[in-house]
Amino acid sequence: MRRIRYSVAISLDGYIAGPNGETDWISTDPEFGFSAIMSEFDTVLVGRRTWQNMKATGNTLMPDMRTLVASRTLLQRNEPTVTVIPNPSPVLTALREKPGKDIWLFGGGTLFRSLAKAGLVDAVEVAVMPVLLGAGIPLLAGPAARVQLTLTSRTAFRSGIVWLKYDVADAAI
Amino acid sequence: MRRIRYSVAISLDGYIAGPNGETDWISTDPEFGFSAIMSEFDTVLVGRRTWQNMKATGNTLMPDMRTLVASRTLLQRNEPTVTVIPNPSPVLTALREKPGKDIWLFGGGTLFRSLAKAGLVDAVEVAVMPVLLGAGIPLLAGPAARVQLTLTSRTAFRSGIVWLKYDVADAAI
Repeated sequence: MRRIRYSVAISLDGYIAGPNGETDWISTDPEFGFSAIMSEFDTVLVGRRTWQNMKATGNTLMPDMRTLVASRTLLQRNEPTVTVIPNPSPVLTALREKPGKDIWLFGGGTLFRSLAKAGLVDAVEVAVMPVLLGAGIPLLAGPAARVQLTLTSRTAFRSGIVWLKYDVADAAI
Repeated sequence: MRRIRYSVAISLDGYIAGPNGETDWISTDPEFGFSAIMSEFDTVLVGRRTWQNMKATGNTLMPDMRTLVASRTLLQRNEPTVTVIPNPSPVLTALREKPGKDIWLFGGGTLFRSLAKAGLVDAVEVAVMPVLLGAGIPLLAGPAARVQLTLTSRTAFRSGIVWLKYDVADAAI
């Protein structure tokens, strides 16, 4: 079965972006093997705000990937390059049963919260940047039910980035 | 010179306690070597709220350690077991120059913010628990200046706890 994996960069204090959406603290690392990781996915899944932020910054290109945007307010006819899904649960439940590569939940923390509550997130994978921000957009939007995790892999790079992979042990407590 | 090390357990999303001060999600690990780590310190440094939480839960025993409580409001005569320091910066600057073991900054995020801004924190060391809380008391109280870090060591335990140690690269940007 295809897995839905929430895979993002975070600060050590758990933010996926700064208070104003800043991502300049996220560094790339040649050791990271980003394209190898990308090749494990064929679908990108984002929330409305993340999608609008991607469009505003021009970072919408995910080669060879289908993009799903979870939103009750966006209109499909205004978003010709993506598939708008107003009700993600049945769409994702069906998609997981079909053959294909994994589904990359790219953010944000609000979509993650609702999908985790519905038991629809299989893994949480974070590239921990060596910085503390003090404020920003959280990895998991609160208030939320606790999400218990099981560590499956950890790698540290010379740049100081630590790549931690977890399975979601109990998605809906 | 003695080092001031902010050494705490955090959730993967960067909280040192739950929204109501909960710490039940912090597990101990026999592999962790807690007493060996404790032996590197002879002084514990906490903020007022952390100290009051320690007293409320009865967790005030730090054998063979002197406890400093940073507070402008607590009265020394009401706190006979600790040393109240109303103005931490000169006290800590002087203390770092004296011989002795390291100083354990045990929390919380507000004291860490003010000490980091003053260039008085040498290291940040976190035991990352395999859980997401979604809300709670942050590792670094916001809003704050960014704290850049340099990874110095990482260890993963069978329990899924990841122990990350960083030097503070640039305490006061």
